[in-house]
Amino acid sequence: MLPLQADMEFTAKQIAELLQGTVDGNAEAKVSRLSKIEEGTEGSLTFLANPAYTQFIYTTNASVAIVNSDFVAEKEISATLVRVENAYASFAKLLEVYNTIQRNKVGIDSHAFIESSSSYGADVYIGAFTYIGKNVKIGDRAKIYPNVYVGDNCTIGNDTTIFPGTQIYSDCVIGNHVTLHAGCVIGADGFGFQPNSENNYQKVAQIGNVIIEDHVDVGANSSIDRATLGSTIIRKGVKLDNLIQIAHNVEIGENTVIAAQTGVAGSTKIGKNCMIGGQVGIVGHLTIADGTKIAAQSGVGSNITKPNEILQGSPAFGIGDYKRTYVVFRKLPDLERKIQDLEKTIASLRDKASS
Amino acid sequence: MLPLQADMEFTAKQIAELLQGTVDGNAEAKVSRLSKIEEGTEGSLTFLANPAYTQFIYTTNASVAIVNSDFVAEKEISATLVRVENAYASFAKLLEVYNTIQRNKVGIDSHAFIESSSSYGADVYIGAFTYIGKNVKIGDRAKIYPNVYVGDNCTIGNDTTIFPGTQIYSDCVIGNHVTLHAGCVIGADGFGFQPNSENNYQKVAQIGNVIIEDHVDVGANSSIDRATLGSTIIRKGVKLDNLIQIAHNVEIGENTVIAAQTGVAGSTKIGKNCMIGGQVGIVGHLTIADGTKIAAQSGVGSNITKPNEILQGSPAFGIGDYKRTYVVFRKLPDLERKIQDLEKTIASLRDKASS
Amino acid sequence: MLPLQADMEFTAKQIAELLQGTVDGNAEAKVSRLSKIEEGTEGSLTFLANPAYTQFIYTTNASVAIVNSDFVAEKEISATLVRVENAYASFAKLLEVYNTIQRNKVGIDSHAFIESSSSYGADVYIGAFTYIGKNVKIGDRAKIYPNVYVGDNCTIGNDTTIFPGTQIYSDCVIGNHVTLHAGCVIGADGFGFQPNSENNYQKVAQIGNVIIEDHVDVGANSSIDRATLGSTIIRKGVKLDNLIQIAHNVEIGENTVIAAQTGVAGSTKIGKNCMIGGQVGIVGHLTIADGTKIAAQSGVGSNITKPNEILQGSPAFGIGDYKRTYVVFRKLPDLERKIQDLEKTIASLRDKASS
Repeated sequence: MLPLQADMEFTAKQIAELLQGTVDGNAEAKVSRLSKIEEGTEGSLTFLANPAYTQFIYTTNASVAIVNSDFVAEKEISATLVRVENAYASFAKLLEVYNTIQRNKVGIDSHAFIESSSSYGADVYIGAFTYIGKNVKIGDRAKIYPNVYVGDNCTIGNDTTIFPGTQIYSDCVIGNHVTLHAGCVIGADGFGFQPNSENNYQKVAQIGNVIIEDHVDVGANSSIDRATLGSTIIRKGVKLDNLIQIAHNVEIGENTVIAAQTGVAGSTKIGKNCMIGGQVGIVGHLTIADGTKIAAQSGVGSNITKPNEILQGSPAFGIGDYKRTYVVFRKLPDLERKIQDLEKTIASLRDKASS
Repeated sequence: MLPLQADMEFTAKQIAELLQGTVDGNAEAKVSRLSKIEEGTEGSLTFLANPAYTQFIYTTNASVAIVNSDFVAEKEISATLVRVENAYASFAKLLEVYNTIQRNKVGIDSHAFIESSSSYGADVYIGAFTYIGKNVKIGDRAKIYPNVYVGDNCTIGNDTTIFPGTQIYSDCVIGNHVTLHAGCVIGADGFGFQPNSENNYQKVAQIGNVIIEDHVDVGANSSIDRATLGSTIIRKGVKLDNLIQIAHNVEIGENTVIAAQTGVAGSTKIGKNCMIGGQVGIVGHLTIADGTKIAAQSGVGSNITKPNEILQGSPAFGIGDYKRTYVVFRKLPDLERKIQDLEKTIASLRDKASS
Repeated sequence: MLPLQADMEFTAKQIAELLQGTVDGNAEAKVSRLSKIEEGTEGSLTFLANPAYTQFIYTTNASVAIVNSDFVAEKEISATLVRVENAYASFAKLLEVYNTIQRNKVGIDSHAFIESSSSYGADVYIGAFTYIGKNVKIGDRAKIYPNVYVGDNCTIGNDTTIFPGTQIYSDCVIGNHVTLHAGCVIGADGFGFQPNSENNYQKVAQIGNVIIEDHVDVGANSSIDRATLGSTIIRKGVKLDNLIQIAHNVEIGENTVIAAQTGVAGSTKIGKNCMIGGQVGIVGHLTIADGTKIAAQSGVGSNITKPNEILQGSPAFGIGDYKRTYVVFRKLPDLERKIQDLEKTIASLRDKASS
């Protein structure tokens, strides 16, 4: 294992060993940070994968560059090259290693508070001013940053990271390898009120919970409400961006991806492998078929039963139809004039015909 | 009072006593949790109110089911029935009792910090790592969860609950029986800037406050800005969902309900008993009449003076007109073709007429 | 310097000295708070700048009113007048002084925790339950409220204020005179995932940071993601409202102002002096020219290359065209009927012509 750390140098040779690549140039060139190719400086490691950036390989000041094994230089290059099978994948791997080391926090901060009825696994990190309620179970290698609240009876899986300022209400279940970014609220009460005779609203108690399965990511300041009864469920592999609203009793299918600021109203079931753009609104009590794609800012107001459709608009319909419709929409003043012209022409034709 | 607690069993007979109902079946059947009828398991208590779910009463594994007194079984039922006047209302009451017991936290956590000039009433809960500023007054039975900030000179009413991670700036007034969900920000500066000669912006200091009256609910991660001068006011009985933005000097009338991700810009006054959908945007300095209903994703750009209208669109107009308009919008490519056809036909008619 | 404090009185004469104005009436009239002219009460100081409010100067109960030097009273006024060059600017100055005094917190709270490798300047405020990570540098007069998290290696400039509950991930750079309102998340991971062969997503590590330059304001519960590599950059003088989403690798140019709930997707570059309305969505990898104005709820899906354009719609186009188009949009059912009428008329004309 390469001793790659945030504050230490490593050589082109060491990088090549880690990535199972070959060195082309000075194998002792040293780097201590990662950079974009166009922003490379002495001591930085970069990569070339996208052909559109090829020009920069000849001018970059980065000390080492990872390139595809079939890359052929057309001019002189000052950087040492490390040739690998897939430059992008190799660089992504380095990013990940770097990130893992950067975030390799372990230990219970003396300013954290954990109720005595709770338990935690090996090698966890629990940061300052984080409060862990009663009967909470925290898995191995979980990392819980400062200022987090984990309510009573929650479960947090192995290898799960909860970033600072996230608040988890009681009784929620968070799986393994989950990432909750900062400022998330998991398990707040669903928005359930019954109108009463005096024109005001009686709250319907929300006693369900939220279940987040393995490998889910939730973005910063997103909120996922607990179910009235039963569970709001985020299935395995779901990726949610920032500032997303998931209402009570919603279920989101495996590997569905949702972009920022989208909202899903109560009891809607979204299928697997869907891709939902930003600022989309989906009304409650709907079923959205597997593989559905929804363009940004769209509104979905009825069930989507056919899988793999692509929709746009508010209310949304087929994206091709939407785009064609919008082209005509932009010509509306022109169409109106044409209709007025037609009306005049016809009036005069009629006059002639009847004269 | 029935000793209904999260971790203890109770019998069908005890439930019938609490709900003033009658038992039909084994009065000693024991339950320890609440469930949906289709998810009932041994030891769970469920209910049947919606006729669409009647089929499940014959197959549920719940031990006890609350039903309407006039329910007539058509097949054998394994669950003990508790017959009551209104099954839904009775079950909602149980949910509420359950919730109240679950959340019955009392006491000042030793990891909370309260400035000595502040005071609090009887039976309050103040959680770990919560900071209460100077001259704050907290009412009886208020519950303030961990990681909350209450700025100087704030007032928090009786029976009010503030969930974890909510931040309240100085000088704000929170009424009785209010619920602020996690991650709310109450009283941040309004977005007020004066352009100056150098093409940049000078902040206008915001020295007003926020007043939240009794029986208001505010959802997770919502923000309500303080007034420039005077108060941003949320009237009695207002219900706000998650991720809502209320700008400075806004006033929202009694019992108005607003769904998630809606934004109201500065100085707008919204009437009583309005219902506003999700992701709606309302521009500043408007007046919205009592009883107005606004469909999700709409944009309101001018005053609404007539009460009880229902609006849709961006900019919004009457919902019936909007729906009729949208039907034609979807046919726009078709309409354009028809106009082109008409133009051709008329051209040929004119040619004939002039020949 | 006038000893203007939240809890002390001052006289009309003292105010006139501070504002370099003249007194008209009782120079010893005392005030202890600021109010709107229509809400003035005994002991309050108000102002008259907007002619639309002139009526209130004759009825206000405020004890002192700041007016423009050329103001001519048409009736008797009970308030003492302080005449100044620019009443609005003078009052704004008072608001600011008031605010500065109100928020003049200094000192390190004993319930804050600062890692020993971090440093801070003169006269800082660091509130209770705030955690400052390793190698953090905090400037002079910075104010960091309670419940804040500042990750390792961050820099916080001079005179910068971070309100409670804001979370800043490691390695971010916050300039001088910056204000981050409560609940912000700065530097969370960008939403970067690579689809893999098994229909699920592999996270792309995000190792860049966020740079916020001087004089930037960020509203409550907004989130600004860190770059994949390099920096997400918010330039000098940018003003962001509440609940805004700024994705990874975005750059926002100097003095651009963005209203609440707007989202900007990854790698988009927004120019200087832009004004972007609320609930706008801007897709990724775009360039938006300097001085662009975008109406609320619009969606921008392509580059804007010409400076100073004003756009509306989703997708957005010129605001004048949009408004004209929307007028016709609202008449669509009518237009459809006209087309149907035309078709009938022509059919009958054709019948006649061919008969």
